[in-house]
Amino acid sequence: MADLPNTPLLDTVDTPHDLRKLQPGQLRQLADELRAETISAVGTTGGHLGSGLGVVELTVAIHFVFNTPEDRLVWDVGHQCYPHKILTGRRNRIRTLRQGGGLSGFTKRSESEYDPFGAAHSSTSISAALGFAVANKLAGKPGRGIAVIGDGSMSAGMAYEAMNNAEQAGNRLIVILNDNDMSIAPPVGGLSAYLARVVSSSEYMGLRSLASKVVRKLSRRVHSAASKTEEYARGLVTGGTLFEELGFYYVGPIDGHNLDHLIPVLENVRDAREGPVLVHVVTKKGKGYAPAENSADKYHGVQKFDVITGAQVKAPPGPPSYQNVFGETLAKLADTDQRIVAITAAMPSGTGVDKFAKAHPERAFDVGIAEQHAVTFAAGLAAQGMRPFCAIYSTFLQRAYDQVVHDVAIQNLPVRFAIDRAGLVGADGATHAGSFDVTYLATLPNFVVMAPADEAELVHMTRTAAEHDSGPIALRYPRGNGTGVVLPEPELLEIGKGRVVREGKKVAILSLGTRLAEAMKAADTLDARGLSTTVADLRFVKPLDEALIRRLLTTHEVAVTIEENSVGGLGAHVLTLASDEGLIDAGLKLRTMRLPDMFQDQDKPELQYDEARLNAEHIVETVLKALRWNEHEAAGGARA
Amino acid sequence: MADLPNTPLLDTVDTPHDLRKLQPGQLRQLADELRAETISAVGTTGGHLGSGLGVVELTVAIHFVFNTPEDRLVWDVGHQCYPHKILTGRRNRIRTLRQGGGLSGFTKRSESEYDPFGAAHSSTSISAALGFAVANKLAGKPGRGIAVIGDGSMSAGMAYEAMNNAEQAGNRLIVILNDNDMSIAPPVGGLSAYLARVVSSSEYMGLRSLASKVVRKLSRRVHSAASKTEEYARGLVTGGTLFEELGFYYVGPIDGHNLDHLIPVLENVRDAREGPVLVHVVTKKGKGYAPAENSADKYHGVQKFDVITGAQVKAPPGPPSYQNVFGETLAKLADTDQRIVAITAAMPSGTGVDKFAKAHPERAFDVGIAEQHAVTFAAGLAAQGMRPFCAIYSTFLQRAYDQVVHDVAIQNLPVRFAIDRAGLVGADGATHAGSFDVTYLATLPNFVVMAPADEAELVHMTRTAAEHDSGPIALRYPRGNGTGVVLPEPELLEIGKGRVVREGKKVAILSLGTRLAEAMKAADTLDARGLSTTVADLRFVKPLDEALIRRLLTTHEVAVTIEENSVGGLGAHVLTLASDEGLIDAGLKLRTMRLPDMFQDQDKPELQYDEARLNAEHIVETVLKALRWNEHEAAGGARA
Repeated sequence: MADLPNTPLLDTVDTPHDLRKLQPGQLRQLADELRAETISAVGTTGGHLGSGLGVVELTVAIHFVFNTPEDRLVWDVGHQCYPHKILTGRRNRIRTLRQGGGLSGFTKRSESEYDPFGAAHSSTSISAALGFAVANKLAGKPGRGIAVIGDGSMSAGMAYEAMNNAEQAGNRLIVILNDNDMSIAPPVGGLSAYLARVVSSSEYMGLRSLASKVVRKLSRRVHSAASKTEEYARGLVTGGTLFEELGFYYVGPIDGHNLDHLIPVLENVRDAREGPVLVHVVTKKGKGYAPAENSADKYHGVQKFDVITGAQVKAPPGPPSYQNVFGETLAKLADTDQRIVAITAAMPSGTGVDKFAKAHPERAFDVGIAEQHAVTFAAGLAAQGMRPFCAIYSTFLQRAYDQVVHDVAIQNLPVRFAIDRAGLVGADGATHAGSFDVTYLATLPNFVVMAPADEAELVHMTRTAAEHDSGPIALRYPRGNGTGVVLPEPELLEIGKGRVVREGKKVAILSLGTRLAEAMKAADTLDARGLSTTVADLRFVKPLDEALIRRLLTTHEVAVTIEENSVGGLGAHVLTLASDEGLIDAGLKLRTMRLPDMFQDQDKPELQYDEARLNAEHIVETVLKALRWNEHEAAGGARA
Repeated sequence: MADLPNTPLLDTVDTPHDLRKLQPGQLRQLADELRAETISAVGTTGGHLGSGLGVVELTVAIHFVFNTPEDRLVWDVGHQCYPHKILTGRRNRIRTLRQGGGLSGFTKRSESEYDPFGAAHSSTSISAALGFAVANKLAGKPGRGIAVIGDGSMSAGMAYEAMNNAEQAGNRLIVILNDNDMSIAPPVGGLSAYLARVVSSSEYMGLRSLASKVVRKLSRRVHSAASKTEEYARGLVTGGTLFEELGFYYVGPIDGHNLDHLIPVLENVRDAREGPVLVHVVTKKGKGYAPAENSADKYHGVQKFDVITGAQVKAPPGPPSYQNVFGETLAKLADTDQRIVAITAAMPSGTGVDKFAKAHPERAFDVGIAEQHAVTFAAGLAAQGMRPFCAIYSTFLQRAYDQVVHDVAIQNLPVRFAIDRAGLVGADGATHAGSFDVTYLATLPNFVVMAPADEAELVHMTRTAAEHDSGPIALRYPRGNGTGVVLPEPELLEIGKGRVVREGKKVAILSLGTRLAEAMKAADTLDARGLSTTVADLRFVKPLDEALIRRLLTTHEVAVTIEENSVGGLGAHVLTLASDEGLIDAGLKLRTMRLPDMFQDQDKPELQYDEARLNAEHIVETVLKALRWNEHEAAGGARA
């Protein structure tokens, strides 16, 4: 581990109460030490770095000026919150970030009263801050709602919906737009272009003009509605129009690394009598750490690294990731199929769409953080004869569930959903775990839902989806690397047909997705105990391979389904089939293994699956328990 | 039935091809006849009237100017499309609107090539039109995407996401903003205030100035990026700034009932070489029909009515609707509980929140069409100690599924979801049927999900939800009137406890929600056949009343679950419990009755439930079939 940085001033600050005892002139030093500590901590743990470095000064300024935690500070997404955690009583645990049992990589209510609202998905902060503000207003209590939101997050519809309602909070709502011209990927869309125009056409305001502008703005607010209208008209040429039109007082743009500007502006905003106010702060992602500033992704998310050189600890070379297998397969298919297009919502590299975009730039669409639009845009493309792939993480697809139902499923349009991050995801924890997609998709008429058991299957399913023109189809697969199987030429799978990968006689394991490897291990153990085990890779949860399932359930003594999904998915569908057909009437030792009825914290994926009781040993346990039950029953019965 | 209107010119127009053969001077008469025909048809069928009347001229103008169906016209929401249907080959069926087997009350792909994209939920049109435009652009085919969207629909985040991506379509995207200052309820929020300012500060443009402005705009577009920036700066004072900032060319506002203005403007827009373009058209909902214009809701949705007087056929007085029982109960509880607040997303009367708002205006929030914001706003309120009720229709809650998961369930915040329109809904058809909420909510950890069997139960569940502070809780109930039971004082129900409403011995019916009445009828029939029947109202699907279910499954010969929800709901949860506990091992005649795996078209609700096979006779059939299966088996077995 690298030496810890020298942080004499930071050492005196455990909470914002300590911070607020400092003189403004000391804050520069505090920020520098906070930055060094952040770099040191993330060097040890890995995690999100660039975003946090960009808001070091902003974090110090907010806690200095506002009365947190009574003033409710909501960090959008939350991956920029490490400096905030250091300043709010969690420095002693900061080197446990994203580890099992450690601090979350995002804000989290259970960690601290300074995290009034947890996050991880983007664009929720203004709505939540508005909720805090309105609750306090109704109760006659003090306390503002303060949202800090990036320019990328502003592209999501949810942020706009919240801004459209901002006036309900009066002067209790403050939105700080952290404009670093970058989310995870380069910015896209009209809003981003707008912000770039505002910033490029404005000099950063000097302290004097800024302060006087703020004062003028605030004093103007006592004017009549008529003069307000006039003010709008005049405000139009000063930048920030879009936000002014939605009812905000706009202040900025401000250099977000200059504490001498940030502090007085925030103090003015704090003392404003009317609102809501939007403060436009311009920052640099990765600020103050050369390796981050100089890297293309600004060290958005990093492995452990050497603080001096910035060199990240490289993971040992392994099999290709599912996302890249998907992206490369799709790119290859598109070489000969002009109808294939790919859509990502601000996640080109995370989804593998970057591989597709490299080969077919004109057919790749990054729509920004805008899953709702992504899905209905894809539906429009499909309705006009294209073969669109929407590549969206499982949890983020929840953002577009109504579009999936209303625009895709009801109209039976052949939109292809490439759903990454299905199942448990490791260090990102519960907010990123794709635990529900099988349930929420397989309940929909018209849908085909499949899950590959390994990356070779993913290749086949990608082609199968491409050629499935009769309705919507989804393939869901996990975060991380494949199993290392040889990548085959893409084959067309028969819709609704599973495969038996191991034939046995007594026990049947019905697997969906990448638990197949654990199922095979369990089968080894069971076979060794004399329990001859069949393992089926069902491939499809909708439509089910009814013939295969019927055969397995009726010819084996015990059957177990396993999936990386919560209740309502594969297990529920198999049980429903067995019930519909009366297979359960005569007795059926059928068990369903699924994610537990709890949100699991971050940990290594294999440990998460251990906690979920979905590893090989748990399959064995489940089978044995079902059989023991039988032996117990059987003692006085006919089957002994 | 009233006399049919005299429509000599309309009689010559079967499709837009006929329309485009007319002279511009004939269009006024055509519009008048189209309006008369629309009024006559809706007088016969009931349905949405005000919205259609507001766009009669716009409908004529669009089909006259653009090359539909090659130009893809997408009506947002679609309830304004009756005049469009009359002009696009469906006049002969227009008096079957919203009837079983008749025309849909919305646009629908299967009805006509002039409906390239179906709708019913709001704010999807720009995304879909963009999909059409981009597909044609990629394929090198002609054809624009044209979205017609109301000002109310513009408040949804999805519309903003789409606008933010509009530039991808170049000049193939045209958005027509139909600004009638009204959706279903009065407008709310910053965008609405903005549009009001634009309209009130602008004279309607005269024909000459309009045309010259459009021409000037279009010719300007060949300028350099630098002069474009200047143009933006100048454009700011002319209105439409917000849309200009997002990258649109803005034209308007235009009088949407003046064909002499509409036609040349749309022609100019059609011939523009760059884009995208937003045309701001101002219309009056209910235009041209005095009873509609003079009514508060502009005849948004009407019963059959007398065309001369406008008098609607009143439904016979019946029991109160579920929505009003909810709203009035909540208002009453809030009299003594200052923490209760209610949130609606543009549906104050549909959800009964209007009743609450009347009693407690300061604690009622209409956030506009913004379900995502509504839910996270409620989560913020809950995190600050309030007791928020989000009153949202089942299908519209799909819009906020990620917020339900990420902001409410993961954080275990006590947001109360009052979910109306659960189950089948009648004339609005598949897009409005609340078929999936039990599945998509009950799979989530921390959630309590309940469904009242009648309006008395709804009273109890409303109180139970109000006092449930330990996590999220949902109650789901149908559209329409209750059963007429006496409304009791609100009681606190024990979480996860069902009730047995009828004790029997051989058959158990496990009901969730308002199928209970059918279950009781079925029990009568079964009892009469000598099959003694227990009926349980489970009240909760999560947590299940495990003790009750265990008892019923083990002491009855056959058990049937029934719910107004698709696969993955109550039946799946009961089967999963029975499997987890090994109850199925020894044989269990358990059947699950649920909505079928298809999207059902509009019809009377009781006929829809007949099609779904969820009425009393189907319960009887299911039980008998399960028992016959047994008799058949039993012939060679032990139980005969």
